[in-house]
Amino acid sequence: MNNIVEDEYVGKGQNGIVQPLLTDLYQITMAYAYWKSGKRNATAVFDLYFRKNPFHGEFTIFAGLEECLKFLCKFHYSDSDIQYLRKILPTSTEDEFFRYLQSLTVEDVTLYSVPEGTVVFPREPLLRVEGPLIIVQILETTLLNLINYASLMSTNAARFRLAAGQLKLYEFGLRRAQGPDGGLSASKYSYIGGFDGTSNVLAGKLYNIPVKGTHAHSYVTSYCCLPELVLTQLSPKSGGEKREFLQHAMKWREQLMSFFQVPTSQANDGELAAFVSFAIAFPDGFMALVDTYDVVKSGLFNFCSVGLALLDFGYTPIGIRLDSGDLAYLSNIARSCFKKIADNFKVPSFEKLLIMASNDINEETILSLNEQGHSIDAFGIGTHLVTCQKQPALGGVFKMVEIDGQPRIKLSHDVEKVTIPGRKETFRLYGGEGYALIDILQRTVEEPPQENHRVLCRHPFQESKRAYVTPVKVEKLLTLYWSKGKICQKLPNMQEIRERVKSSLRILRSDIKRSLNPTPYKVSCLWI
Amino acid sequence: MNNIVEDEYVGKGQNGIVQPLLTDLYQITMAYAYWKSGKRNATAVFDLYFRKNPFHGEFTIFAGLEECLKFLCKFHYSDSDIQYLRKILPTSTEDEFFRYLQSLTVEDVTLYSVPEGTVVFPREPLLRVEGPLIIVQILETTLLNLINYASLMSTNAARFRLAAGQLKLYEFGLRRAQGPDGGLSASKYSYIGGFDGTSNVLAGKLYNIPVKGTHAHSYVTSYCCLPELVLTQLSPKSGGEKREFLQHAMKWREQLMSFFQVPTSQANDGELAAFVSFAIAFPDGFMALVDTYDVVKSGLFNFCSVGLALLDFGYTPIGIRLDSGDLAYLSNIARSCFKKIADNFKVPSFEKLLIMASNDINEETILSLNEQGHSIDAFGIGTHLVTCQKQPALGGVFKMVEIDGQPRIKLSHDVEKVTIPGRKETFRLYGGEGYALIDILQRTVEEPPQENHRVLCRHPFQESKRAYVTPVKVEKLLTLYWSKGKICQKLPNMQEIRERVKSSLRILRSDIKRSLNPTPYKVSCLWI
Repeated sequence: MNNIVEDEYVGKGQNGIVQPLLTDLYQITMAYAYWKSGKRNATAVFDLYFRKNPFHGEFTIFAGLEECLKFLCKFHYSDSDIQYLRKILPTSTEDEFFRYLQSLTVEDVTLYSVPEGTVVFPREPLLRVEGPLIIVQILETTLLNLINYASLMSTNAARFRLAAGQLKLYEFGLRRAQGPDGGLSASKYSYIGGFDGTSNVLAGKLYNIPVKGTHAHSYVTSYCCLPELVLTQLSPKSGGEKREFLQHAMKWREQLMSFFQVPTSQANDGELAAFVSFAIAFPDGFMALVDTYDVVKSGLFNFCSVGLALLDFGYTPIGIRLDSGDLAYLSNIARSCFKKIADNFKVPSFEKLLIMASNDINEETILSLNEQGHSIDAFGIGTHLVTCQKQPALGGVFKMVEIDGQPRIKLSHDVEKVTIPGRKETFRLYGGEGYALIDILQRTVEEPPQENHRVLCRHPFQESKRAYVTPVKVEKLLTLYWSKGKICQKLPNMQEIRERVKSSLRILRSDIKRSLNPTPYKVSCLWI
Repeated sequence: MNNIVEDEYVGKGQNGIVQPLLTDLYQITMAYAYWKSGKRNATAVFDLYFRKNPFHGEFTIFAGLEECLKFLCKFHYSDSDIQYLRKILPTSTEDEFFRYLQSLTVEDVTLYSVPEGTVVFPREPLLRVEGPLIIVQILETTLLNLINYASLMSTNAARFRLAAGQLKLYEFGLRRAQGPDGGLSASKYSYIGGFDGTSNVLAGKLYNIPVKGTHAHSYVTSYCCLPELVLTQLSPKSGGEKREFLQHAMKWREQLMSFFQVPTSQANDGELAAFVSFAIAFPDGFMALVDTYDVVKSGLFNFCSVGLALLDFGYTPIGIRLDSGDLAYLSNIARSCFKKIADNFKVPSFEKLLIMASNDINEETILSLNEQGHSIDAFGIGTHLVTCQKQPALGGVFKMVEIDGQPRIKLSHDVEKVTIPGRKETFRLYGGEGYALIDILQRTVEEPPQENHRVLCRHPFQESKRAYVTPVKVEKLLTLYWSKGKICQKLPNMQEIRERVKSSLRILRSDIKRSLNPTPYKVSCLWI
């Protein structure tokens, strides 16, 4: 790997605030104490891992690695950083230390990681970072910040994907996200986790994610009557002169409302004006928000009238969006209305119109809609997705497990908080049907498990729990990504990471992935 | 106001990703539809408001205004933005539209706002944005993104402040925040909401917030025994030659453990080594994390031994941090231990040592600790603060209330979702005791309420609910901040915004601010 790779990634616009000072002050005070007390040359191994899967689930998607590597590529304290640190550290801090900080590099850091997009489990190292104690310790907060939310978000998106099956999923959460970057990261990692696109234009531009959007309620309310329409004509798709489009849509509306026996006075004219103007602007992209006034008595009729007029002009309408009310009921009403029109007016394409729903939807809403029966084809998901409302943080931690070759442990009254000491590998053992059976943590000095050989697997904290497993395939999860100051793997693009999420989830038995009371996946140790 | 003001704010490093494309695609598609259908010169008024106070509370702190104004200062579509938009909009989109976008400015936008840091309530406009329909609509998503999380975070911090009374509060959440910017915004707005500082160094550098930090568990576990200590000497504060410090601390430890009748074998030597090395690095900033092994049998003794040795050398130790276990119990044990030492060894300053707690603390934890009785002086708060775990999004919305002088309304089956139409002002009416009595929304064309004159206040949606109020003071909440392409108010600095939060909360009766079942504050309308 040469420098071009790094330049490419560094250049690809990582948020400028990801910089060495985006850290907790105690990393710097510890650095000084280590430096001062002669631990400058100590080498350490740290594991980055989490203790519990999020969202009451039994799996997690690992993400954020590329951002970590970009951070390493440009790691350097600027003059103004040093100036600021001089200001906030005690005046007794030795001058030499600041010179040391300014010359600090990540040349001697080695970073192993699980590939981005892999399904992972509690207590196994996602990153193993090795090198001079001071610099590895200093990386803690920034690495955690970059991994925690990325993994949480990708996992959340993957759960929505599992709940929604083949339906389309779009991320619509920018306005409710935790800050500008919260919004941008949400778009990126929800795409990685299995979403089909986003409404966030900047995310589309930066990450090449499909971008979706039509109009808001305000667009509909901006029209209050038909005479407001300045433009009422449209050229047919086949070309030729502009023809009257509004009149045509209005004729359709009369026909439809008489067919469905609803008085035409019920349909809102401002809404029709809005739909007509939108259709004239996007004749091949006509999708309408139908719940500004009344879905059943106004929105659907106005949409169908404009849609049928578009068909007559040679264009293909796309569908509707529902943003309030009983989504199961309204989507079924809409589908039935489309079907009746398709049958009665001989427009078969009408049956397949897209129905999108987007009001405060979470994983449970989708599961409950599935149970009730609905006719929704696509979901636009905002708040619950981007803020991970059910659990807004992944509790990733970064713990020292070895120093100068000696394993270290942090004891705790809470057995779950005890660190598993030593430099470790994780192996994933597969059974005959292609499913993963168990992950095994073991010291790097131990013999790796062999395919088709019996392996004794023990519970990390409960001596009595143990079992033999004979894997047909063994996968080593940690790979070297950073060494000698360089990224040393070809990094996958977003599409490849997305594919890895999919294939990684396929190797999990479905009882581990289910939403209610999932079965825990086992993670075992060979020692203790 | 001249350009210098804007330059100053623009220059102050707004996150580079805050740019016009940080928006939902539908803002651009609506812009095209408006543009195409001759609404280019329509002028509109939009209100930015929320419908429900967060965290089951009855108040909200408004924040994010300065970021919105910075965004306006630099609003401009770049060449690459236009290039990208050409790629994603339908090929039928007229070329002229892209030239229009590229020349788009916020010159003709007028923005009124509640001052940043003011306490606000549901349905009242926080921002009133007026100007050409297309450009005002385009601002929606970015303004919401910048206001929603900032206000949520400030409100959350203010609630912690109310719960903690005079105790110190520090934000420690960077590693668990929703992305890098989520972390940075959390530091900024928690300081505005009433916190005393942060662990986030970059936030300290950018916003001049006090930064705090000592060491992590890994610092303690990096030492396993005393011989590891390379440096064991320290110069007394008064100057002069270095003297043996470790031996001195060890002597103290023997004395203390014998006094408390605990076998010296219980105290961990690695922990003592870590504390000694940290004290040598920061003799006047010695604060120790005492729960790596056992607070009562090891951590406290090691801390006190080093603290007493520091006192003998002329320095003043700061205190301890507890990061696990029963915080009420452990803090009381620690305080009692400090008191006994203060009395027995004639070191009165020991009684006042700082006790900080930092394990997964939320508002309820603090309230419950208050009830139990504890000896904590300061809290370090992470996840629950920065992710606003109890409610991770404020549901701010941006609704058109007037177009070309005509009020607009969005109806909804849900009465709470109905927009209050028309260009409005908000007045806050005060009673004799200095408390705010009620906020009144009224059309800008109506006569404002007068001090010492009776005002009829009505419930916005329930005709029967009404009351007369005679205010001794009337405050107009909306102020002009942006006009003719410029910021037209001197913006307060962080310290001033922080003060405004404090004074703004003081005018609320305490029953409105209490955590459990608070009384709703009333917001009324003069019309309907």
